[in-house]
Amino acid sequence: MKLWGGRFEGTPDELMERFNASIGFDWRLWAADIEGSMAYARALERAELLTAAERDRLIQGLEAVAREFETLVLDDKYRAGEFEIVLSDEDIHTAVERRLGELVGQVAGKLHTGRSRNDQVATDLRLYLMWEIPHLRQRLGELQEAILAKAEQHLDIIMPGYTHLQRAQPVLFSHWLMSYFWMLQRDRERLDDLGKRVAVLPLGAGALAGHSLGIDRQFLADELGFRAVCENSLDAVSDRDFVAECLFWAALLQTHLSRLAEDLILWSSAEFGFVELDDAYATGSSLMPQKKNPDSLELLRGKVGRMVGHLVALLITLKGLPSTYNKDLQEDKEPLFDALDTLKLALPVATGVVRTLEVNAEAMAAALDDAMLSTDLADYLVRRGVPFRQSHELVGRAVRRAEALRLPLRELPLAEFQAISEAFESGLYAVFDHRRSVEARDSYGGTATAAVRQQIERARSVSS
Amino acid sequence: MKLWGGRFEGTPDELMERFNASIGFDWRLWAADIEGSMAYARALERAELLTAAERDRLIQGLEAVAREFETLVLDDKYRAGEFEIVLSDEDIHTAVERRLGELVGQVAGKLHTGRSRNDQVATDLRLYLMWEIPHLRQRLGELQEAILAKAEQHLDIIMPGYTHLQRAQPVLFSHWLMSYFWMLQRDRERLDDLGKRVAVLPLGAGALAGHSLGIDRQFLADELGFRAVCENSLDAVSDRDFVAECLFWAALLQTHLSRLAEDLILWSSAEFGFVELDDAYATGSSLMPQKKNPDSLELLRGKVGRMVGHLVALLITLKGLPSTYNKDLQEDKEPLFDALDTLKLALPVATGVVRTLEVNAEAMAAALDDAMLSTDLADYLVRRGVPFRQSHELVGRAVRRAEALRLPLRELPLAEFQAISEAFESGLYAVFDHRRSVEARDSYGGTATAAVRQQIERARSVSS
Amino acid sequence: MKLWGGRFEGTPDELMERFNASIGFDWRLWAADIEGSMAYARALERAELLTAAERDRLIQGLEAVAREFETLVLDDKYRAGEFEIVLSDEDIHTAVERRLGELVGQVAGKLHTGRSRNDQVATDLRLYLMWEIPHLRQRLGELQEAILAKAEQHLDIIMPGYTHLQRAQPVLFSHWLMSYFWMLQRDRERLDDLGKRVAVLPLGAGALAGHSLGIDRQFLADELGFRAVCENSLDAVSDRDFVAECLFWAALLQTHLSRLAEDLILWSSAEFGFVELDDAYATGSSLMPQKKNPDSLELLRGKVGRMVGHLVALLITLKGLPSTYNKDLQEDKEPLFDALDTLKLALPVATGVVRTLEVNAEAMAAALDDAMLSTDLADYLVRRGVPFRQSHELVGRAVRRAEALRLPLRELPLAEFQAISEAFESGLYAVFDHRRSVEARDSYGGTATAAVRQQIERARSVSS
Amino acid sequence: MKLWGGRFEGTPDELMERFNASIGFDWRLWAADIEGSMAYARALERAELLTAAERDRLIQGLEAVAREFETLVLDDKYRAGEFEIVLSDEDIHTAVERRLGELVGQVAGKLHTGRSRNDQVATDLRLYLMWEIPHLRQRLGELQEAILAKAEQHLDIIMPGYTHLQRAQPVLFSHWLMSYFWMLQRDRERLDDLGKRVAVLPLGAGALAGHSLGIDRQFLADELGFRAVCENSLDAVSDRDFVAECLFWAALLQTHLSRLAEDLILWSSAEFGFVELDDAYATGSSLMPQKKNPDSLELLRGKVGRMVGHLVALLITLKGLPSTYNKDLQEDKEPLFDALDTLKLALPVATGVVRTLEVNAEAMAAALDDAMLSTDLADYLVRRGVPFRQSHELVGRAVRRAEALRLPLRELPLAEFQAISEAFESGLYAVFDHRRSVEARDSYGGTATAAVRQQIERARSVSS
Repeated sequence: MKLWGGRFEGTPDELMERFNASIGFDWRLWAADIEGSMAYARALERAELLTAAERDRLIQGLEAVAREFETLVLDDKYRAGEFEIVLSDEDIHTAVERRLGELVGQVAGKLHTGRSRNDQVATDLRLYLMWEIPHLRQRLGELQEAILAKAEQHLDIIMPGYTHLQRAQPVLFSHWLMSYFWMLQRDRERLDDLGKRVAVLPLGAGALAGHSLGIDRQFLADELGFRAVCENSLDAVSDRDFVAECLFWAALLQTHLSRLAEDLILWSSAEFGFVELDDAYATGSSLMPQKKNPDSLELLRGKVGRMVGHLVALLITLKGLPSTYNKDLQEDKEPLFDALDTLKLALPVATGVVRTLEVNAEAMAAALDDAMLSTDLADYLVRRGVPFRQSHELVGRAVRRAEALRLPLRELPLAEFQAISEAFESGLYAVFDHRRSVEARDSYGGTATAAVRQQIERARSVSS
Repeated sequence: MKLWGGRFEGTPDELMERFNASIGFDWRLWAADIEGSMAYARALERAELLTAAERDRLIQGLEAVAREFETLVLDDKYRAGEFEIVLSDEDIHTAVERRLGELVGQVAGKLHTGRSRNDQVATDLRLYLMWEIPHLRQRLGELQEAILAKAEQHLDIIMPGYTHLQRAQPVLFSHWLMSYFWMLQRDRERLDDLGKRVAVLPLGAGALAGHSLGIDRQFLADELGFRAVCENSLDAVSDRDFVAECLFWAALLQTHLSRLAEDLILWSSAEFGFVELDDAYATGSSLMPQKKNPDSLELLRGKVGRMVGHLVALLITLKGLPSTYNKDLQEDKEPLFDALDTLKLALPVATGVVRTLEVNAEAMAAALDDAMLSTDLADYLVRRGVPFRQSHELVGRAVRRAEALRLPLRELPLAEFQAISEAFESGLYAVFDHRRSVEARDSYGGTATAAVRQQIERARSVSS
Repeated sequence: MKLWGGRFEGTPDELMERFNASIGFDWRLWAADIEGSMAYARALERAELLTAAERDRLIQGLEAVAREFETLVLDDKYRAGEFEIVLSDEDIHTAVERRLGELVGQVAGKLHTGRSRNDQVATDLRLYLMWEIPHLRQRLGELQEAILAKAEQHLDIIMPGYTHLQRAQPVLFSHWLMSYFWMLQRDRERLDDLGKRVAVLPLGAGALAGHSLGIDRQFLADELGFRAVCENSLDAVSDRDFVAECLFWAALLQTHLSRLAEDLILWSSAEFGFVELDDAYATGSSLMPQKKNPDSLELLRGKVGRMVGHLVALLITLKGLPSTYNKDLQEDKEPLFDALDTLKLALPVATGVVRTLEVNAEAMAAALDDAMLSTDLADYLVRRGVPFRQSHELVGRAVRRAEALRLPLRELPLAEFQAISEAFESGLYAVFDHRRSVEARDSYGGTATAAVRQQIERARSVSS
Repeated sequence: MKLWGGRFEGTPDELMERFNASIGFDWRLWAADIEGSMAYARALERAELLTAAERDRLIQGLEAVAREFETLVLDDKYRAGEFEIVLSDEDIHTAVERRLGELVGQVAGKLHTGRSRNDQVATDLRLYLMWEIPHLRQRLGELQEAILAKAEQHLDIIMPGYTHLQRAQPVLFSHWLMSYFWMLQRDRERLDDLGKRVAVLPLGAGALAGHSLGIDRQFLADELGFRAVCENSLDAVSDRDFVAECLFWAALLQTHLSRLAEDLILWSSAEFGFVELDDAYATGSSLMPQKKNPDSLELLRGKVGRMVGHLVALLITLKGLPSTYNKDLQEDKEPLFDALDTLKLALPVATGVVRTLEVNAEAMAAALDDAMLSTDLADYLVRRGVPFRQSHELVGRAVRRAEALRLPLRELPLAEFQAISEAFESGLYAVFDHRRSVEARDSYGGTATAAVRQQIERARSVSS
């Protein structure tokens, strides 16, 4: 079935039909499409374009189509009983309307009054995303919760903090973990901001110019749970900003997951040995019997590619399009669907990894060396009146001297220290205590246990 | 000068020094860097790490450095009086600290107490962007205002509305123009959302672990105009989400400009002839004397490339980075600076184009054909009780018949219409009135004059 | 079935299993996987790791598996008779090995001797692409042939040439068409260059270090049609340059198609009216009965997004990966498969569009105006001794004067011309002949009929 | 100066002038522009459009302009003596032509006869890249040479080979190093392929249609060192495929550098400790006196972002452009220039890093564990007649058993092995020799010393 045959003589080329059809992926919009049509039938009746009986007949028919789709989707098939989606259906709107006509007869032909696939598909896609957002928010929250629980559980573990992947200063393992909480919290905020902009209704914009039939758009918005109505019909049918924003959101979130993954991949290596993945999130090698590979993490990292790829794809498609609807916009759906599908696996996998992660506190402790306390030693000099820049220089020399003598810094004799500067006195050796170093950094957002505890409390309060 | 010499024996390779240095672009942060340092000096004094006299001496020194930078930047040079930025300065923080030392002596060495370039550069960049946002908002607003003014001025002009670049339905020129207002309004909202996330203070996070010196981060935030303090020091020094979000914002805004540009490029062609660019926004050909080319618009369109390129660049840089600061993050600045520079030209150029655009109402009127009223004809049948889907089919046939007879639709004889369907009667010819068609689409967001007038009012209320 | 169970106690998390499995898309490699395994069985026998009987049994088993896959793929199902692909198969190598074991028993366990999925998947993917390249080359050639045929057929049609979408100089329609031939010819050359780099054999690299079993890699290369053997086993298992290069090739080719599409979309508009798409490549509107939309072309344009997106995705995935195989590399396949699928529809659709395109010579002729001959007029002055830069200026003034008087340039009186410069004489009017202008541009690669004829001949000679 | 004033009344808006001008970056084309113009003057004389005296005057003038540019560029200024580049010059062609006019008078106005900036800029850019390619090839070769030298020097060092960053099998350090040689070799091949496609001459295509003046394009090609002449004038002025291909080439090369960087960053960590960067390629911390950071490597990794960003930027700019020249194409230069600049630092920095790298053979040896020999143990069983798949399973169980007993695999008693399978006999312990494992992998491309030696020889032969 085609919704537009009258003006045409020829029939589509078969490859063209395949090239053109979106039914292969937009069948996912079936529930949104049907929900939108039910609301539209009610609006048509209010505008006296349908009788109450016609409206009811349409709505019952749509409910029947919905039941068929449920079966069909559950079975992962293109056929449910008598109903089969076929390529010539072109898109989900055609498939639903065609099937509705088979079930309820000619009255089905009234449903499209004043409506175009242009405003319809924009409405379907927004509705679909409106329904997805709470699920995504939920899964984000579960990952945050796993982080919080793990951070609370391991509040006593000290590990090396790194910059440039070089040991820098000792930090709490929980402090490291919490750094991911806040990245995800920004993702939640961005998702909320996005949510506002998704819930704006295009329906009633017609093909591009609005409609002339007295259909109440605010009623439609209320029925379907939209926050507002698109202000301009030309913009309404071609605005895909909300998809672009969602893809950016997804890409940045995946980037955060990739950083978490990178840390844990490194730490799972024999050389670090700080953590061990649960068997449930690792796989083996077909050749090397001893291998336990962090595949879950590598995929969390590698999938940044597809996420950014999707974002780029849509922005390219939008670039330089003439205003209103152009067929190019059909390319909006596959990236969105794949991005959401990916996250709906990636987030729970990340959650599972964190929840089941085994933390090797001994290996972390063993990796704490004296040089990591150099800043503490410089602070010691600062407290003794040496300007910081000079303290930094003096401690740098001490580090170099200790390396030359192949000694840990704390074993460098006082005489050596004092040869560098007389500001060093025997009290300096008190600095060599990693726990003390951690606890000293008690500023807001710092790594001291008390500061991290407060951080966790704040996290609980913002994420609940 | 290096801020980190003590531990090193060798000196950097010269090419490495050039590869490594950011001073060639991060000099732009000078004002933010100095402002941040002045606040930091005050905080150090409050923490009793400086005396009041030392603080004042530092602040006066910083003010002097600021004056030198002003001169130097105005003259587009790397030298101002005695002060010259040199490659060995490595970055803006080093340049400022080095110069400060030259001016105020050893006390300059106290300024970096408890501070790292890691928290400092993150603070500088956020402050820089906080200062830029109002300017960007302003220029966006000016473009919106130019659109509003033009829309009000030309409220009487009817033109063909297009979908798929095929004539679709008549619309008001002002309705078309207003569609861009709303795209830009979403850009304004996204900029506001971004603003919230930029104004969060990293300073006090130290290199990664926080600090131990009793410096009051909330005081620093208040001094510098930040809304909040970063919650986690590890995250604080490596969070570049705000840059990514800004680059996405810029890319999507540029995409909107590219669509406006595409419409106007098409309409400036001889074949459309709907608009003419002012000479101030066009250029000629070095070979063809007759040419007047819409270069301004072509650049507005073409620059989507660099904007999306910048966004992709940053996301790639962030992908898979181990947590906290890594030198890769230095790649955050050039894309941001270029994106802002581009917009600060692109927005006023777009504003100028719109303001000075000559609109050719006659050419627009001449392009209105009868077939564009087919939907109105179908609506006519709907009002006579024919279901829409059938009306659509019947009108499609009439269009095909008129094409076959090489007649405009309104000249197709009634007998021909009735041969297609008896639902057609002589009253159908009243449909062939483009003004009537426009005015009929009076739904919320539609193209009728009254609806567009209300749209303009709502636009004024949200953008003021 | 897992190929790596021995070392593991736990079982994979179910979501992890879905996240991890590639069988949902890498089933496409079945023929390559089986072909590779048959060659490998022969190599194992030559290395005396199999008896001849074992080899034959394996090969017969693999042939049986291949027949099952053929049925299964033809029916677009995951089941063929007793054989069903299941999620726990993880990937195509596992599925084939598992099924082989079911058919031939324990000897199947010998096939993987010295082989890893790391070298196996790299081999499969290269083989797959080696088999696809001739098909792609063929379809590219068909599009070129359609262009050539159309160019020869319409060699007499003159149309406006544009720069900046402004009328510039008259050109032959065939000259325009041939410009796309050469873009595609570069795509063919790049495809040939790519082909060389694809046909290099990874098999025998083992997991990363090579093998110790005396298997002859050159024999394997010969059996499978590879041109050479990878020189370094570590590189062999993680080199995806050939995929990146293929995705770049596809993205640039699609960009060429997008430019062709853009031209034809513009020319299909009522305002240009230069061409009309065959009904087979257009679609209608669900709301507006008169519409005939160039959907085929819009999709050719819009699909640049996905193609560049795929390229970006892979480059991101590769960025910063530690050497040898990492699971991230699994992300290489979906972009490649989708890029090839897209082209296998896009190229024939473009071919069909060109073949069936109706060209409206009258509309093209009607769009030729006098100002397009300004360069010819400047050349006239050059031949009369006026330096070009000055001629350009003088003709520019004449154009401006004619516009002011609202006259076509050829109707500007001689007195007006001479008021601008005395170099103008009555002979100037001979310039106003578009055919003459076209034929004058007879340089190599120019638009004169003779030059285009030669161009077509060269095209035939390089593309055959 | 404008090259196109005659037809215009108004003057450009000042911001528009800045938005439009390319002189801020295309000044780099000065030498190519002047070289092209000298050849063009010779061609004009051959076509009798210039006298020999005029040609000589033009060429002398162009030589003088070239000398001024040399000074100006050396001093990194926009002024040399009397000559100053100004914004109103718009682009390099205008600047050169303007200055030429100042030096030689009105004859300068003859140089542009039959030429357009459209064919001129395409020629300049190709010539520029043709001159750059040998330099890039040279620097690539130097990095390959550094790798070869280092590989030969350290042929005796065994290290752990990794997959998934988990220890996999022992390999030679030189084998690892050589894997990068081959990636770079593919980059060299791709650069050669690109070179063929760059050296095709657009000059003589005019603005779009060719020229009518008898200028010999083959002569121009020969003069300027081009391999061939563009076949179609419309294509000639808008073909930027060679830029896209160059940017892809650069992006993939940078990706290779990023993988090298990632390996070395990991190995420079305290936990691996396999290598130490020379001080010349490391930097310190402004806060932490002990730090030695691998900034050079982090930048090599991070700069993939900008390289892929540039590629994406150009592809987006090209997408959907109408044929022939559009101003959007001006966006081609900045990405190209920056990509080449970046590589001209990145390649020598990478070379320096490799050349000066300190390799810690002891740390590498210490990281070799018994489990890495599991595949050898499975091969041992294979040689004893156990099918590989079963051997793999049995060894996996042994690894698990050894882990449970907290024993290195070689200390697992024979009884334990035999409890798993009777195929294990006391000879199995001979497997536990990393050197033997390495030397056993003597297949083509494998890690055995002899195989690596041959690999190095082949590398020398292809890269010389």
